[in-house]
Amino acid sequence: MVHLAHDPDIVADGLTTMDLGAVLPLTAQVLDGHLHLGGVDCVTLAQEYGTALYVMDVAHIKGQLTAYQEALKTNLPLARVVYAGKAFICKAMCRLLAEQDCWLDVSSGGELALALAAGFDPAKIVMHGNNKSPRELQEALDAGVGLIVVDCFEELERLSQLCRHTPACMAPDAQAMAPDAQSSSSSPQPAQIRAASQGQVSGQDQPGGLQARAASQGQASPQPILLRVKPGVVADTHEYIRTGAEDSKFGFGLADGQARQAVEKALADPNLALWGLHVHIGSQIYELDAYRETLEVITNFLAELLTELNFEATVLDMGGGLGIAYQSHDQPATIQELGSLLTGHLRSLCASHGLALPALLVEPGRSIVATAGITLYTVGVVKKIAGVRTYVAVDGGISDNIRTILYNARYEAVLANRANERRTQLVTLAGKHCESGDVVAIDCSLQPPCPGDLVAVFGTGAYCASMSSNYNRQVRPGVVFVENGKAIEVVRRETYADLLACDVG
Amino acid sequence: MVHLAHDPDIVADGLTTMDLGAVLPLTAQVLDGHLHLGGVDCVTLAQEYGTALYVMDVAHIKGQLTAYQEALKTNLPLARVVYAGKAFICKAMCRLLAEQDCWLDVSSGGELALALAAGFDPAKIVMHGNNKSPRELQEALDAGVGLIVVDCFEELERLSQLCRHTPACMAPDAQAMAPDAQSSSSSPQPAQIRAASQGQVSGQDQPGGLQARAASQGQASPQPILLRVKPGVVADTHEYIRTGAEDSKFGFGLADGQARQAVEKALADPNLALWGLHVHIGSQIYELDAYRETLEVITNFLAELLTELNFEATVLDMGGGLGIAYQSHDQPATIQELGSLLTGHLRSLCASHGLALPALLVEPGRSIVATAGITLYTVGVVKKIAGVRTYVAVDGGISDNIRTILYNARYEAVLANRANERRTQLVTLAGKHCESGDVVAIDCSLQPPCPGDLVAVFGTGAYCASMSSNYNRQVRPGVVFVENGKAIEVVRRETYADLLACDVG
Repeated sequence: MVHLAHDPDIVADGLTTMDLGAVLPLTAQVLDGHLHLGGVDCVTLAQEYGTALYVMDVAHIKGQLTAYQEALKTNLPLARVVYAGKAFICKAMCRLLAEQDCWLDVSSGGELALALAAGFDPAKIVMHGNNKSPRELQEALDAGVGLIVVDCFEELERLSQLCRHTPACMAPDAQAMAPDAQSSSSSPQPAQIRAASQGQVSGQDQPGGLQARAASQGQASPQPILLRVKPGVVADTHEYIRTGAEDSKFGFGLADGQARQAVEKALADPNLALWGLHVHIGSQIYELDAYRETLEVITNFLAELLTELNFEATVLDMGGGLGIAYQSHDQPATIQELGSLLTGHLRSLCASHGLALPALLVEPGRSIVATAGITLYTVGVVKKIAGVRTYVAVDGGISDNIRTILYNARYEAVLANRANERRTQLVTLAGKHCESGDVVAIDCSLQPPCPGDLVAVFGTGAYCASMSSNYNRQVRPGVVFVENGKAIEVVRRETYADLLACDVG
Repeated sequence: MVHLAHDPDIVADGLTTMDLGAVLPLTAQVLDGHLHLGGVDCVTLAQEYGTALYVMDVAHIKGQLTAYQEALKTNLPLARVVYAGKAFICKAMCRLLAEQDCWLDVSSGGELALALAAGFDPAKIVMHGNNKSPRELQEALDAGVGLIVVDCFEELERLSQLCRHTPACMAPDAQAMAPDAQSSSSSPQPAQIRAASQGQVSGQDQPGGLQARAASQGQASPQPILLRVKPGVVADTHEYIRTGAEDSKFGFGLADGQARQAVEKALADPNLALWGLHVHIGSQIYELDAYRETLEVITNFLAELLTELNFEATVLDMGGGLGIAYQSHDQPATIQELGSLLTGHLRSLCASHGLALPALLVEPGRSIVATAGITLYTVGVVKKIAGVRTYVAVDGGISDNIRTILYNARYEAVLANRANERRTQLVTLAGKHCESGDVVAIDCSLQPPCPGDLVAVFGTGAYCASMSSNYNRQVRPGVVFVENGKAIEVVRRETYADLLACDVG
């Protein structure tokens, strides 16, 4: 919850833009007093595309994806980075992921439809959701998504039934998209082999890997699935985004035997191929202890499954959740530390339990895109309330960034047109919405602002565009990708006409 | 903030639907076990339009508007109900307001554009916003909106400049919409007279009213304005929606002399016609004391302005804020109580200060539409976590109702297809989004639910559709108006194609 009350002890930090450290996107520079991103002047971007505007540093995104890949694969070739689309998704992002050889985690039919529209290979899609509708499951089957993460018993049954009937249901378009999908084949072909044939899992670099072991277990069912398990681990993060505890709407409980029961049910179902387990303990996690604990819990469970059910997981999906620095003093764990922990600890735990090493999937979202993105706003009003605070109203707010009031998020900001000056004023960046909670950053250091100045808020690449609304019928900002001195508008700003598109009454 | 933690002492209330009292829309009925609204079976609505679906009881909306009109005009003929569009707006809503002889409060260019698209009379529009862009101000001038509520000094100057240049700027379309708008006239015509000529203020029932007094003060400036004043009154409501305190981004402070300064500035500006003041102390207010206090503060200020500046306000806009019952035990003040307080206290304060009675505007939003609206969801998953709680996952959530996690909002819900049964189970209604905070109602009594059941959540007519997002690329629900046994889809459900409309990359 946002504490709107102003703390009189807080003073401006006097930092310049380039002092902001880990908050800055990879290519952030100050040239002639202007903030540049991807080699493009933010002042020019604002002039060209208007404000509010989301700007994403493509080099930063690529760098983070590569960092994950290297941190995981160095120690564990059987690892894949599955980007969590809910953090930020558009067609250009999907293409960027494909170029970087990353997989994609979607958590709704809408995210799936977007990925397919972008031409993203469905075999590299992992489909999530605690309440997938029958329609969404059918869409996933029709598209031939690589893995469906099953969340509950209802879904196990629903999916099994849909798999049984899918050949008849499949639309010609979907068949064309997934020509070798087992569900459309009259003589079932192991989904594992399909996966291998599509190159998602290369046999060369993955000895004893995914497809071989799964096949040896005789799981010839059409749809590869994971089961989402609640490890009962409480991550040290915001209550709303903590998902691994027993009291969660997500997944099968370990403690109450539901997960074990689900494994048995899935193994007994000829329509489903159980490839392994998925866990996700939360989001914006700074301390890695919860991951360590989760690995221990989950490998204990895997050992139990091996001993008692002769089931060995081919895939272990550890979810996402790594935190980022929203403020210059924040010190989250690094991608390298997470990678090292996950791969090293998994190796040693598997060895001690006598388990073959599963393919490791991780699903980072925020740590890929949050710092890559900034929001540009134009200052409209500067309102000094003597003895209270200075409100700086910008041309956006709760509609393009609800994180501030939803999660008590804090942000760093600079004047992008005077980015070389020191931040000597403490302000509250407010939006233009009819609501006091409409704040972008509270008690935020800034260069002394005037109407017309351009504000850049850092760290808005995740969960801002994706959670944006039309509150007060505000049009949502566009998204511009910048790289190597070039800007590409990948999502255009809405118009008043867009706001009326569904208004049919 | 939502307390997700489950309180084991809470048990289901055992109520049936019709026990829910003030939470129910006016025409709610249970027939053959099904919830009916506006004479239409909710089960049929769900079948026809799918879920999630917003349904609005038109008779309820009309009833609330009439209740306000009667509560105000009985005691004070110079009163107008100005519906706050931010609560819920669409073209059909605008037409309904016009039929009911209500004015409309818009707080952005987008809301204005929507109202104009619906053919709403711009002269009956009050334009709000703490940071109106020059473009939005120009759009308001071009349209000929009745009143602009000026929020800060920057805006006073901006508006004055725009007024000076508007005749040249005016688009032919806007001129056609506002044929008698003073800003397009070569020989200025008092805006007050325009108002009267359009019948917004009838001379007969308003002796000594708005237009006469304003005209007598010689305010012949093109754009009638109000000044938003911060009365320094702290309303007993949620911090995010409390707006009248000194520490607010809205308006001119009284205590620090800004309001007085703004009045002087506006009076001295030949381009602006100062008609009066606006205050808004917050939202979802249960106790009327804050209104009483605000009236006292504001009439003291008006008396000061009369004595010292010889300025007498023609209009006093008291904003909105009346709370509603979200749960059956809630007991907010009634419209009648608010009307009686506002009109009675204003009369006596004006008499004691020797002030002529101004025209009173009130701006209700939530208390008009919140209870009129319900959201229909289909149950997808019922997950019992032994010793913890039961999660009931529905086909919507944080994307169509963010109020639960944003304001710790509580709701009543029933199974619309088994609405005559008692609510004997305590559940948490969760959504389908990838987030633990994605809950619609926590510790909520319900008839024992099964997958496929239809849930109706009451009190969702305000700030749900208007704050809705596409988080997880969830399509936003449609809105259906029901009345006299008929259903009209006024906002259609989004499609996957809509989600891609701006994705140009």
